[in-house]
Amino acid sequence: MRRKGLASMAVQTVATAKNVDLGPAAALSCRECGERFPLGPIFACELCFGPLEIAYDLPVGDPEALRKRIEAGPANIWRYAPLLPVPADVADKPNLNPGWTQLVRADNLARELGAEPGKLFVKDDSGNPTHSFKDRVVAQAIEAARAFGFTTLSCSSTGNLAGAVGAAAARAGFRSCVFIPHDLEQGKVVMAAVYGDDLVGIEGNYDDVNRFCSELIGDPLGEGWGFVNVNLRPYYAEGSKTLAYEICEQLGWELPDQLVIPIASGSQLTKIDKGLQELVRLGLVEDKPYKIFGAQAEGCSPVSAAFKAGHDVVRPQKPDTIAKSLAIGNPADGPYVLDIARRTGGAVEDVDDERVVEAIKLLARTEGIFAETAGGVTVGVTKKLFEAGVLDPSLTTVVLNTGDGLKTLDAVAPTTGPTATIRPSLDAFRDAGLA
Amino acid sequence: MRRKGLASMAVQTVATAKNVDLGPAAALSCRECGERFPLGPIFACELCFGPLEIAYDLPVGDPEALRKRIEAGPANIWRYAPLLPVPADVADKPNLNPGWTQLVRADNLARELGAEPGKLFVKDDSGNPTHSFKDRVVAQAIEAARAFGFTTLSCSSTGNLAGAVGAAAARAGFRSCVFIPHDLEQGKVVMAAVYGDDLVGIEGNYDDVNRFCSELIGDPLGEGWGFVNVNLRPYYAEGSKTLAYEICEQLGWELPDQLVIPIASGSQLTKIDKGLQELVRLGLVEDKPYKIFGAQAEGCSPVSAAFKAGHDVVRPQKPDTIAKSLAIGNPADGPYVLDIARRTGGAVEDVDDERVVEAIKLLARTEGIFAETAGGVTVGVTKKLFEAGVLDPSLTTVVLNTGDGLKTLDAVAPTTGPTATIRPSLDAFRDAGLA
Repeated sequence: MRRKGLASMAVQTVATAKNVDLGPAAALSCRECGERFPLGPIFACELCFGPLEIAYDLPVGDPEALRKRIEAGPANIWRYAPLLPVPADVADKPNLNPGWTQLVRADNLARELGAEPGKLFVKDDSGNPTHSFKDRVVAQAIEAARAFGFTTLSCSSTGNLAGAVGAAAARAGFRSCVFIPHDLEQGKVVMAAVYGDDLVGIEGNYDDVNRFCSELIGDPLGEGWGFVNVNLRPYYAEGSKTLAYEICEQLGWELPDQLVIPIASGSQLTKIDKGLQELVRLGLVEDKPYKIFGAQAEGCSPVSAAFKAGHDVVRPQKPDTIAKSLAIGNPADGPYVLDIARRTGGAVEDVDDERVVEAIKLLARTEGIFAETAGGVTVGVTKKLFEAGVLDPSLTTVVLNTGDGLKTLDAVAPTTGPTATIRPSLDAFRDAGLA
Repeated sequence: MRRKGLASMAVQTVATAKNVDLGPAAALSCRECGERFPLGPIFACELCFGPLEIAYDLPVGDPEALRKRIEAGPANIWRYAPLLPVPADVADKPNLNPGWTQLVRADNLARELGAEPGKLFVKDDSGNPTHSFKDRVVAQAIEAARAFGFTTLSCSSTGNLAGAVGAAAARAGFRSCVFIPHDLEQGKVVMAAVYGDDLVGIEGNYDDVNRFCSELIGDPLGEGWGFVNVNLRPYYAEGSKTLAYEICEQLGWELPDQLVIPIASGSQLTKIDKGLQELVRLGLVEDKPYKIFGAQAEGCSPVSAAFKAGHDVVRPQKPDTIAKSLAIGNPADGPYVLDIARRTGGAVEDVDDERVVEAIKLLARTEGIFAETAGGVTVGVTKKLFEAGVLDPSLTTVVLNTGDGLKTLDAVAPTTGPTATIRPSLDAFRDAGLA
């Protein structure tokens, strides 16, 4: 059950590249059986079909030197190049250079939620180049694609990822060919198509698009193609670690006490946990307990349902929520998320779409941050967890906003408009009672 | 003629605040007659109705110490607090903290335009919190509003400014009341209204909205209101200087040789020039000649027309262009723009809407930057000026992108879409000829 998603995909022939320089990345390692493989464009274990992840030779031993090196680095994710699967000179290559987004001290929001001002923060990833956290993961995939000699970048997507891949490929000099369901909203199609390379509408839903990509990857037609979230997934996924690094550095090299993170595939949450553990191991932060909370929309809450039922496995759901970017009914990393939430003393919770919209507006009117629906889910769950006394209001809490409200205007449009419409006269304004 | 726009506005009673701490800002000074006034919420000279701007006591004398102080500052505009009309502790106050956006080395675009790779850069201000350069100017206005005791922030706007004011007011704890034409596109209304304070639709066009605001500012109804682009304009406008500071610092504390800047009111261009001059005066960059080029849309090109005709004054036009954020038919700073373009050996040029759309797509497919129509105007003019041999391809050239393509999707939507739509099968994909 746990590896159903991966086992059902064809395991690609191991096409490892010799002399691959991806910095501290030493090998691929199976998350289930621990078997190691040389770095290459593979994503599932040959022995047990478990998911592969990067094993590192990290620069342990001199935390002070490492910290100084990081702090002297650029104001983007490449300040953490020594901890990522990228070559040391990555900052000199053409890349969108995402990251180092703001950690906003959210005192106004804290007051509304009953948290202690000064203790609540929003990590606002809408500040990335294409305005979602996807820029972080695609940036890693680009470096892996360069190392493996791929010339075309691809993915299946319903929105944020398509734009992130199109933009990054344009800057980095790759061809891109992105697959989307043919009936996406026009706005999302425009955002994905404007970067000028191939965008292919697939007659079917997102599952059909994914199935098609899995076929393409095993076919000669797909030779030389890097699918950022399939055969480059082990590299791609590591980009989420940079959220953990930035949060701790921005807190003054301290672990937060509580994190609230949205769950789509669950990969982001697991990699943030991995990033926090690495900082402890490297001596960059002092070890202390932290709790990780996962956030889902009620209309796609397979992990939350499993958490509440005390299950170790995740029963797939058919998504029905306005939070499209989180609408993965069978999340590959769901079981790992359950492990982490339980191990750290956190939880997984969900909110309905009405509360998602309320939470988007709450964040906008308190902190001036206009989040997409995924951010509404996270803030909505945060509110619910404070109300339930599950989150401790006196502890340092970081809430993730992973995307931009401009991409999901439809969610708030029906209930957001002018306070009044008046003639251009002082009398009319006086009558409106707004002065 | 030169001061028509300002002279026609009511000059507000001087309501100077005692003990105003706006850092190095020493006084207001008339750009026409040089008369000085104490810092206050005024914008026009009592003697000659000329526009007022900030006069500074700048920290001259120890450029090395100043440079170090700046470099140790935060990754936002407040690193330049010693050069801005803000208190020294501004970075500790709730603020959107815009700026320090990417200066993108645009080698792909350079190749397309015939410029020397390594010499062409795009300053991408879509990375600001509400994704336009307006966050820079509103951030200054907020500090002035705090200093003068205003509790409500206001403006007239057709888009970017409304969102910037709404968001900044929310974060900083001001009430906002923003005025827009009643028939704006729904998307723009949502972006402006989501921050939750008052948004008032005015039955009329943008000129009617402006006229209404001018009445309100002189009426008791508007008491305690800071209009960011009217009675706080001298402070607000200074925010554009930070573009000059960042460009030079990001070039390694060097002046660029050529800058291409869009023109709406013309304020941004004049303040960038002011910022460059200040850096020279402070010894932060070595003095050398630089040329400033202004960019307009053909459908609203009063400054370009005056430049080409050799006039000193600007004849107002009725705007008709897709570049709405530049559609000011009677630009207040037009004559100053003409002065600067001529003094520096630059030029003012315009492009038609078709070229604007082409330029948006050119920037997207070469550098992965999705610009709003204003960015299309600037890149389109840059292309035209390289083609005409007016811009020197061997010199360091910086092109400004002031806003985000997500806000003007309509401009590219009719001509941007999937390359193909196919059934989810390898055969169909093979037939499409995209592999």
